[in-house]
Amino acid sequence: MSQAAASSAPLADALKHTAEIVNAELDHLLAVPDGPESRVHEAMRYASLDGGKRLRPFLVMQSAGLFNVAESSSLRVACAIEMVHCYSLIHDDLPCMDDDDLRRGRPTCHRQFDEATALLAGDALLTRAFETVAAAATHPDPAVRCELVWELAHASGADGMVGGQMVDLRAAEFAMDVAAITRLQQMKTGRLIGFSCEAGAVLGKAPGVMRQALRNYAHDLGLAFQIADDLLDVEGDASEVGKKVGKDAGAGKATFVSLLGIERARAQADMLAKQAVRHLDVFGDKADLLRATASFVVDRRS
Amino acid sequence: MSQAAASSAPLADALKHTAEIVNAELDHLLAVPDGPESRVHEAMRYASLDGGKRLRPFLVMQSAGLFNVAESSSLRVACAIEMVHCYSLIHDDLPCMDDDDLRRGRPTCHRQFDEATALLAGDALLTRAFETVAAAATHPDPAVRCELVWELAHASGADGMVGGQMVDLRAAEFAMDVAAITRLQQMKTGRLIGFSCEAGAVLGKAPGVMRQALRNYAHDLGLAFQIADDLLDVEGDASEVGKKVGKDAGAGKATFVSLLGIERARAQADMLAKQAVRHLDVFGDKADLLRATASFVVDRRS
Repeated sequence: MSQAAASSAPLADALKHTAEIVNAELDHLLAVPDGPESRVHEAMRYASLDGGKRLRPFLVMQSAGLFNVAESSSLRVACAIEMVHCYSLIHDDLPCMDDDDLRRGRPTCHRQFDEATALLAGDALLTRAFETVAAAATHPDPAVRCELVWELAHASGADGMVGGQMVDLRAAEFAMDVAAITRLQQMKTGRLIGFSCEAGAVLGKAPGVMRQALRNYAHDLGLAFQIADDLLDVEGDASEVGKKVGKDAGAGKATFVSLLGIERARAQADMLAKQAVRHLDVFGDKADLLRATASFVVDRRS
Repeated sequence: MSQAAASSAPLADALKHTAEIVNAELDHLLAVPDGPESRVHEAMRYASLDGGKRLRPFLVMQSAGLFNVAESSSLRVACAIEMVHCYSLIHDDLPCMDDDDLRRGRPTCHRQFDEATALLAGDALLTRAFETVAAAATHPDPAVRCELVWELAHASGADGMVGGQMVDLRAAEFAMDVAAITRLQQMKTGRLIGFSCEAGAVLGKAPGVMRQALRNYAHDLGLAFQIADDLLDVEGDASEVGKKVGKDAGAGKATFVSLLGIERARAQADMLAKQAVRHLDVFGDKADLLRATASFVVDRRS
């Protein structure tokens, strides 16, 4: 690991820069038309502009940077993944799911608008994500665009994120041990984080060994991210986290923290972050920001 | 119009055949994995297998047939469109939308399962639709697959079907005249019917004039279909229609029937069906089943 990775200042700057260009591109991709349908567009924007760490877009931009992919390409894919992430948050927050009132310190989409509008805004963001990736502006080679669409769908759907949400809803029916929680989280958050890291390799037509290295990095990073999320739910401050904390314990939900305890969960997250970094050796100094991301993910306060 | 189009027997046989092969393909595309996530897969199957007229898949298969597209290609696109249609019905039926208990004569998805599962099943069907179209098995040319993904997304999202649903939800806020209802229905149902008809031309790399002819046919067919739907809501029998009737009048909703009256709405639907047929001249006898479909759409009882 080089010196750059040890300091978090370059990472903070890079995250901020990515958030800015992602916001600008989302603003462009989510233009509001005239007509009564504008309400759903407003809700799509409310739920996706100016919020969140933009971790997934950052992973796309950084992995694409390893292969000198044009920023105009990677930015569209980054925005598409963020649309999928934001759609999942809108639907997750609905009364029939987690019934949350607060997200990123603001009213959730259905509290700001109404349930029907939030439902449709989620549907439309998911749809717009695929529209964005499939468009010619994303990459000159349609085979690359098709692969991205397929991978994004596979990571997001019933075999990935949505499947993980289903397992999460049913968790109380099963004796969830660490293996079961790990599988759940791989589906629920890991797959989309994995796709974010691999997307750069797809865009850059990278050699298989490099794509595999990013997949391995994402695997460990995603799990570390989730354990850190569970720790924040126990140790975090709602005003910093931007959403309700203590939810999992309140719901009697098995988490990494409830199964391992705080100390072991923290140690596991740190171990995974270190392991994630080791997969990046093949990229040399170019991957320093991805290395720093691993520390950021486990040390974050929100 | 040739003799074949005047009789509905060949159409009935062809619709039945398409429904059978679509069911078989959906059964294949929606396989259920092991694990607790299987519940969402079961809900996806419940909401999409063995139900409906399969009108949109039929339009795909027939339009693709005009250009000698391999059935293995058109069938996958037909199933993808049906997945999108079925996802929209699941979400439409939810309590925060139309709050319907009955669909195709059976409990709606959220009544059979629960709201959260139905929400996720809709999300997953939409996602699987794009996964299906983007896969190499759909067409050897990735440019064709990308175009299909883009068109499907554009027809289904905030500028199409979802936008139409948003307008529909807000219809009471506006003075909806025939022009506004027409625009709403073009978005809500017309775009997906339009894509169903154009998909064959995309798959077959058809000349622009033929694609335009199918687009024009779909435009008139879609509107005729919607007027017939409004008529069924007034005149239909719930046991035949398979869902609640009289909903629109009960909700005080403006429809083609409430604005035009039954007689003029019926005449308008018939006129549109005849006009739809005229756009098919360029295809000769090969389009006879599409011609018969126009009559079927306005004369159907469910």
